[in-house]
Amino acid sequence: MTNNTALNKLVIVGVGLIGGSFALALRNAGLAKHIVGAGRSLPNMQRAVELGVIDEIATDTASALHNADLVFLAMPVGQTAAVMAQIAPHLQIGTLITDAGSTKQDVIAAAKQHLPPQCLQYFVPGHPIAGAEQSGVNAAQADLYRDKHTILTPLSETGINATEQIRQLWQACGSIVSIMPAAEHDQVLAATSHLPHILAFTLMNHLNRSTGTPENLLRFAGSGFRDFTRIASSSPEMWRDICLANRDELLKQIEAYREELEAMQEMLRKNDGETLEQAFSQARNIREGWLKNKKTVTQIKTEPAK
Amino acid sequence: MTNNTALNKLVIVGVGLIGGSFALALRNAGLAKHIVGAGRSLPNMQRAVELGVIDEIATDTASALHNADLVFLAMPVGQTAAVMAQIAPHLQIGTLITDAGSTKQDVIAAAKQHLPPQCLQYFVPGHPIAGAEQSGVNAAQADLYRDKHTILTPLSETGINATEQIRQLWQACGSIVSIMPAAEHDQVLAATSHLPHILAFTLMNHLNRSTGTPENLLRFAGSGFRDFTRIASSSPEMWRDICLANRDELLKQIEAYREELEAMQEMLRKNDGETLEQAFSQARNIREGWLKNKKTVTQIKTEPAK
Repeated sequence: MTNNTALNKLVIVGVGLIGGSFALALRNAGLAKHIVGAGRSLPNMQRAVELGVIDEIATDTASALHNADLVFLAMPVGQTAAVMAQIAPHLQIGTLITDAGSTKQDVIAAAKQHLPPQCLQYFVPGHPIAGAEQSGVNAAQADLYRDKHTILTPLSETGINATEQIRQLWQACGSIVSIMPAAEHDQVLAATSHLPHILAFTLMNHLNRSTGTPENLLRFAGSGFRDFTRIASSSPEMWRDICLANRDELLKQIEAYREELEAMQEMLRKNDGETLEQAFSQARNIREGWLKNKKTVTQIKTEPAK
Repeated sequence: MTNNTALNKLVIVGVGLIGGSFALALRNAGLAKHIVGAGRSLPNMQRAVELGVIDEIATDTASALHNADLVFLAMPVGQTAAVMAQIAPHLQIGTLITDAGSTKQDVIAAAKQHLPPQCLQYFVPGHPIAGAEQSGVNAAQADLYRDKHTILTPLSETGINATEQIRQLWQACGSIVSIMPAAEHDQVLAATSHLPHILAFTLMNHLNRSTGTPENLLRFAGSGFRDFTRIASSSPEMWRDICLANRDELLKQIEAYREELEAMQEMLRKNDGETLEQAFSQARNIREGWLKNKKTVTQIKTEPAK
């Protein structure tokens, strides 16, 4: 890279919501001069050019990576190993590599297996906690990452400068950046994201199995149900990959959740209104505390610099 | 009642979000001339008068019920039996009675126990599926019920005219009215509302128990988590009452849900990506189908009459 964080050439692998929004944010910040996109779907790539998200569609891996300052891996996580194996022979020493995968230990394992060892000091695994049920470059937006958290999980091999540069790029996208070990990341995400997705998917399938005609039941479902199940509209392919990638931690979380659910059942069985109300109160208090903290963080974050 | 559905005197027991919104909607529709409110909290009742939700605060049960056309029971469901016992001696033959309780079999049992038998023909149990985490008369709004479902569960004793009048009043509030047996109502609501609430409360408590410091985990929770857990901010007192009132059906639902969750665990344990993706796809399809149906119903409902 030339000066501080500005990129002369940025390569985005997978120009969808995540990759496209990163490109738009950096371009708006004046930090990406030339953006090359690579992806499976030609119509999507052509649309990315039309929308001004990328400047050029990669024709082959070698020329795409030639003199690249940064390669951003934003394709579905299930393709991580294959893409790393594909770019490995063409990576130049000094080209930064980062990704946006929802799980980090598996991405690191793939990197250690497929990337050239001398490139690992330039590899900064990352995870922007943003996105929605939408996908594809049409959904990309320059402010997707504004006030959202991004977690970086550098390897012991990763250089301090590399981590610092990636941190600055995410901050330029408006994101709040944290750094933590990959194992901790995967545990946090299993609890707050992967488990809730499993619970929401499971509820829909439970309604289907218990009636056979869920539409009769669902006629009367209200806004609470709509919000609770919103994440059950997420991409099945993407969530298959995420759940398998973080399988061990997710299984632990499901097991512990089931125990908590059994405790609720027991309160109900015993008709124990007092304990039930305490459990509901505790749940509400934790959530309200979270919302309050969240608000405070965003307010501090968006205070104008002095 | 004088003509069709217009009420000369409407009595609202429990002037909160539900009772207050019913009063405002009927007043706006020109269907309630004089509205009397009864409730535990004097400041809330005074606020209800200030806001124009009610015209008068009930001083005693006898005079409040004197010549009432309709008594709407909208206090917390845990108080149903006590309130019915209190109004029973003062109910006039011909005064309609309805309620807004989230469970219906228990309300019917209380009515059979506490209301005079000759009044049951005027009793139309009901449940408007609307509301939010907010409560109190300050949250009341005239359009709370617009395009929302209301379920009526008449007893075998309930008169056809009584049901028809209550149906018309809810329709005047903008609601889509359905009639079904109380047992079916309680089953539908256990599946689509009570179970999701238990699951959301349980998730918050699981996060608390598994870490002891949920704020560290929750720092990184995103918008999917926020929506999934929105219903965990609901009133603990209200949900204790609802869950206990519908305990048998809810326990069945939790049990069946746990089996579905075990099936998901099994797919994960086996690393069975194909079956997992199918399960996620099915869940998403059911939800998308629901959203589509919902939209169609609302569109039909709001087409101008010819």
